[in-house]
Amino acid sequence: MKIVRNTADLRRLVKAAKRRGKKIGFVPTMGALHEGHLSLIRRARQETGWVVVSIFVNPIQFNRSSDLRSYPRALAADARLAASAGANLVFAPSAGEIYPPGFQTYVEVTQLTRRWEGEHRPGHFRGVTTVVAKLFNLVQPDVAYFGQKDAQQARAVRQMIDDLGFDVRLKVLPTVREPGGLAMSSRNALLSPDERRGAKILFESLHEGKRLIQLNLRRGNGILRRMRAVIQKVPSARVEYIAIVDPETLEPVRRVKRPALLLLAARVGKTRLIDCMEVH
Amino acid sequence: MKIVRNTADLRRLVKAAKRRGKKIGFVPTMGALHEGHLSLIRRARQETGWVVVSIFVNPIQFNRSSDLRSYPRALAADARLAASAGANLVFAPSAGEIYPPGFQTYVEVTQLTRRWEGEHRPGHFRGVTTVVAKLFNLVQPDVAYFGQKDAQQARAVRQMIDDLGFDVRLKVLPTVREPGGLAMSSRNALLSPDERRGAKILFESLHEGKRLIQLNLRRGNGILRRMRAVIQKVPSARVEYIAIVDPETLEPVRRVKRPALLLLAARVGKTRLIDCMEVH
Repeated sequence: MKIVRNTADLRRLVKAAKRRGKKIGFVPTMGALHEGHLSLIRRARQETGWVVVSIFVNPIQFNRSSDLRSYPRALAADARLAASAGANLVFAPSAGEIYPPGFQTYVEVTQLTRRWEGEHRPGHFRGVTTVVAKLFNLVQPDVAYFGQKDAQQARAVRQMIDDLGFDVRLKVLPTVREPGGLAMSSRNALLSPDERRGAKILFESLHEGKRLIQLNLRRGNGILRRMRAVIQKVPSARVEYIAIVDPETLEPVRRVKRPALLLLAARVGKTRLIDCMEVH
Repeated sequence: MKIVRNTADLRRLVKAAKRRGKKIGFVPTMGALHEGHLSLIRRARQETGWVVVSIFVNPIQFNRSSDLRSYPRALAADARLAASAGANLVFAPSAGEIYPPGFQTYVEVTQLTRRWEGEHRPGHFRGVTTVVAKLFNLVQPDVAYFGQKDAQQARAVRQMIDDLGFDVRLKVLPTVREPGGLAMSSRNALLSPDERRGAKILFESLHEGKRLIQLNLRRGNGILRRMRAVIQKVPSARVEYIAIVDPETLEPVRRVKRPALLLLAARVGKTRLIDCMEVH
């Protein structure tokens, strides 16, 4: 497996792979790879002929500089993990390689990014869609793999692909969870052992919401109240938002229909975590 | 020459051409083709193996609905002209094909589009870069051809290509002018015979500015005053802006250095025209 740092090398290797008739799979990541990422890389390995993993802690998608500074970084370990899961190439550019002096072009998905993460992290999705657009142009993938955990991100990227006509197929794969239910996330490394035990309450809250919807409860507010009550059992956890939304529009629903999507963001100690669950 | 109306047909034909090893040239237009457009198509024909011309009056780059309504349209004649200049394919989509219901993704170049056309036509450049990004994704050109007349547009598109990593080479070709100097423009069709005779004053003003700079006059304000005085000789012409700018940043310069770029927008009667001139 090769590791490249600059776009010229990346383009050259991508073109060579295309000339050899390879179908290109792409897994964009911010590194600190966990089983969630590895499940994407393995699937890409099964479904395509040449797998690119990008590892880039994208500065413009962080709305708080402390969050950017504390974000876990582990390139050497990441490269080994990516290779073992089947990556053919790791693209690990510097911030200056992606955003050279004078950079000033942004891609923005408007309505779908107004609420939830977009509301609590101003500028976040503009940063995400801008870097994903650039990475698509550099990697020219046939298929791109994203995790369902970042449900709003996956929905926004799908919108961008459709609206701007990227010739990329998007696959969104299920959230990988730890045995207690905590969604795999690079930020989990920032939790203390106690917080980590407490953090599974997010999953339990989502699970309770799903259970109630499957029991045919229909009043969104009633379901959300019971989901909040679950999280209140862990004192170190504070809900930032919790919502039942239409999976297509991400708009909140008062009368719950299926399919529905449950979205949740909470701080556990100082660490901000998000999770979600689909209810069919 | 083929004319296609939908993106699926376009993609299929582009892929077939690529499989045949063709290098793809692309000339994006809003139709009402004139010698300026044809010079781009002919150059594309010389330099690439397969030439796509798009004809699309892009609604989101018009800041005034009256301007969108009155913009000249002539698809049948355009198709004949494009074919005669060497186009292999005309892509003439409907507005709904490019902007289906729910469309909400925009590409924006920030600093370079703040002034001049960007200031006088709010939203214009967002519309331009969004549609050009989408057309690049659909057409997948190796080389794209733009006219120098729309200097700020060409500069913004170059910034977008660089910033977002589009694998497209940009060629900006010289403005084609009528014998009296009036820059070719689809909007010239909206001028009365009298206005058309008067409109060459824009060229004369630019020419005067160029002459003064080449005489080594350095005070921007003095040069601009003399350029304005030229235009005032035609009563139906009203300057909207006139500027001497750095060709890279498009920021106005007080002390003129070479190369410089002269930018000019004016109404002649009710018709808004722009023109520009490089001074080396």
